[in-house]
Amino acid sequence: MKNNLNHQFNQKRDHNVEILSIGTELLLGNIINTNSQWIAEELSLLGINHYQQTTIGDNLNRICEVIKESSSRCNLLITTGGLGPTPDDLTTQAVASAFDADLLEREYLWDEIVMKLSNKTSNINISSLKKQCMFPKDAEIINNPRGTAPGMIWQPKKGFTIMTFPGVPSELKEMWNETAQKYIKKNFSDSSIFFSNTIKFTGIGESSLSERIVHLLKSENPTVAPYANLGEVKLRITAKAKNKLEAQKIIRPVKDKLKQEFPTQIFGENGDTLASVIVGELIRRKQSIVFAESCTGGLLSSTITSIPGSSAVFNGSVVAYSNAIKNSLLNVSMDLLDKYGAVSDQVVEAMAIGAKRNLNANWAIATSGIAGPSGATKEKPVGLIHFAIAGPDKTYKFKKKYNSIRNRNEIQRLSVNDCLNNIRLILLSTKY
Amino acid sequence: MKNNLNHQFNQKRDHNVEILSIGTELLLGNIINTNSQWIAEELSLLGINHYQQTTIGDNLNRICEVIKESSSRCNLLITTGGLGPTPDDLTTQAVASAFDADLLEREYLWDEIVMKLSNKTSNINISSLKKQCMFPKDAEIINNPRGTAPGMIWQPKKGFTIMTFPGVPSELKEMWNETAQKYIKKNFSDSSIFFSNTIKFTGIGESSLSERIVHLLKSENPTVAPYANLGEVKLRITAKAKNKLEAQKIIRPVKDKLKQEFPTQIFGENGDTLASVIVGELIRRKQSIVFAESCTGGLLSSTITSIPGSSAVFNGSVVAYSNAIKNSLLNVSMDLLDKYGAVSDQVVEAMAIGAKRNLNANWAIATSGIAGPSGATKEKPVGLIHFAIAGPDKTYKFKKKYNSIRNRNEIQRLSVNDCLNNIRLILLSTKY
Repeated sequence: MKNNLNHQFNQKRDHNVEILSIGTELLLGNIINTNSQWIAEELSLLGINHYQQTTIGDNLNRICEVIKESSSRCNLLITTGGLGPTPDDLTTQAVASAFDADLLEREYLWDEIVMKLSNKTSNINISSLKKQCMFPKDAEIINNPRGTAPGMIWQPKKGFTIMTFPGVPSELKEMWNETAQKYIKKNFSDSSIFFSNTIKFTGIGESSLSERIVHLLKSENPTVAPYANLGEVKLRITAKAKNKLEAQKIIRPVKDKLKQEFPTQIFGENGDTLASVIVGELIRRKQSIVFAESCTGGLLSSTITSIPGSSAVFNGSVVAYSNAIKNSLLNVSMDLLDKYGAVSDQVVEAMAIGAKRNLNANWAIATSGIAGPSGATKEKPVGLIHFAIAGPDKTYKFKKKYNSIRNRNEIQRLSVNDCLNNIRLILLSTKY
Repeated sequence: MKNNLNHQFNQKRDHNVEILSIGTELLLGNIINTNSQWIAEELSLLGINHYQQTTIGDNLNRICEVIKESSSRCNLLITTGGLGPTPDDLTTQAVASAFDADLLEREYLWDEIVMKLSNKTSNINISSLKKQCMFPKDAEIINNPRGTAPGMIWQPKKGFTIMTFPGVPSELKEMWNETAQKYIKKNFSDSSIFFSNTIKFTGIGESSLSERIVHLLKSENPTVAPYANLGEVKLRITAKAKNKLEAQKIIRPVKDKLKQEFPTQIFGENGDTLASVIVGELIRRKQSIVFAESCTGGLLSSTITSIPGSSAVFNGSVVAYSNAIKNSLLNVSMDLLDKYGAVSDQVVEAMAIGAKRNLNANWAIATSGIAGPSGATKEKPVGLIHFAIAGPDKTYKFKKKYNSIRNRNEIQRLSVNDCLNNIRLILLSTKY
């Protein structure tokens, strides 16, 4: 299902923007082109659509050709890459030669570069940087606070502007935020913006969710688009409006309706994660949590401790891979381990109860299962995981058998997701 | 530093390949274009360079224009996206109309689609799939084992072939591997291949490494290109040769020289990780390892347990966030905790010794520090981490202060990296 914003809003637009990524490493598949995606998103936020992205290698003639073609189609061309000091950094030269312009040295830029480098103990051949001060006569400079290569804003012909940026993402982003964004907003944006809200679901698949909101997926403003990750589905609701407040007004009723229709599957918005939502709820309740992890091997603990402030509710955990540790630190009896095996609901229950007591918390979650690829038996296949959650009043048990196409890491991540979602549902149903 | 393969090898090539990605969601920045990178890498492996990538939205005229332009520049155009059932899936129609061809229904494809859907309980409007059976008369079909939308191989004019794929990465990849790869290899590849080996470093930065191998970075066959991740640097050595064996012969001397020059910084190759290398070495030694984690919060354990087979050497660990647990499960005395604080080399040493004894292993690693963003004091700033490694014969201690620009997760990941690298170096120096 695709997001249709371009089609709905773009008919009367005057400005036509394109992105050009320059670098042979992109054509070799050595790196993923994240710059294009980042710029595309920034343009969306400015309410600007663009129609085409091109990627080209470090070849003077080909870069030059592509720039000429773009200049006949669009009003603004944004380039990344090819501003470095090496012989295969050819962007500025190609831009100039596409419009038969000369490159002239800006002395003050050279002084800046020399100053920037004086802080570094580097073997770099400084004369190779000379070309980073060369620009067409009437080009404006985009200052680069994070590197030596400035960019430019240049209008080589009426109705066509080119902006150049380095390929290093951190440099591009800072130059964009400091200089380019204002320029583009002033010169290429109409007065409206795009604004998005993301609603996060778990415990429901992308296709089931999509089938239940077919009407929403056809909505024009806001648009609604689903994205799926392992164990979670996100709906991105995007409004076009005069300002953020107006956009939020357009998004609100859709959000409210979703929350009504999916009261348990929606766990948060935007930057929320299952872990952050649970940490927040436990802080509110002034309750603590601990884990006894076998098959998840520490991933449950590290998922919780990745949340800033988690130490307020998380005491610690025992990663009990061996039966000896299940016995010594969690007091699971050797009899129980012998009788049922480590991967059983009896043992996982004893682990949760032992952890709750020994690590002294209100809640304890225990996991035990076969993450694979080895360790499986006929009765206990790869992907079979037992869980127990010991709470203030009772202990909850459940098990899962994940699809056999899942690998070890996916099984561990899905298990953690299910632990967290189940305690979230228990916390929801035991309002405090 | 860029990889120059395109320039060195491409002068006499007959075949000119381009990639076209179709989808408005790419122009909106909603998703990253991983398909282009994946195809680019596959083409490299086949010894085929391509010169241009284009991305365009779901607009019939614009897709059509771009295809016509490509057909005047290249011999093979590979498209992804726009093969779905919705009205904005326009690729096949655009391809046909670019060359004034009609689309005709292939009845057997319709039977296949109906059969594929009969397994699913879906509300999808099946008649919307009809367009997925429509192709130009003389197009070959690329079977899609994972979805309903087949692709095509079509030569609309002499010297120009177009291949269409869906945008869903798993479908694209399976269709590529099953059908497309063979076709491209037979028709568009000369007899040589590219083959790469990746050498992995830690404990040395990308710029320091690059300065020490300037000569290698200029090498033409094989080429050598550095990539940096948090805590590790990779060198990708790529050779062009008649076959894999020849390529390995070209790569071998470069690899040997690097191993000689960086005997401790190189920890592995290709799929190796610090964790997998340590698990392998401990298996070889028949030794076991446990952890006592405070600031790393389970990440060290989960990094080790993500390695298949780690249960042979990893007994378990205690994630001791609270002082109470450091005391009860690791026997760190309350006196020591009061006197020096949890973040101190005295406490981290006691944690390692306690873990080694209580969890009964040959090796124990303990961590305690300030991962931030809160919890810092003037004496103990964010990023200060103490480590201890208790071994069979002695206990090693060290500390780190990570740069203040690092966030919580980066500090945790760098800490884990340093734990693992330090025990690797200790294992190296205590050959067994």
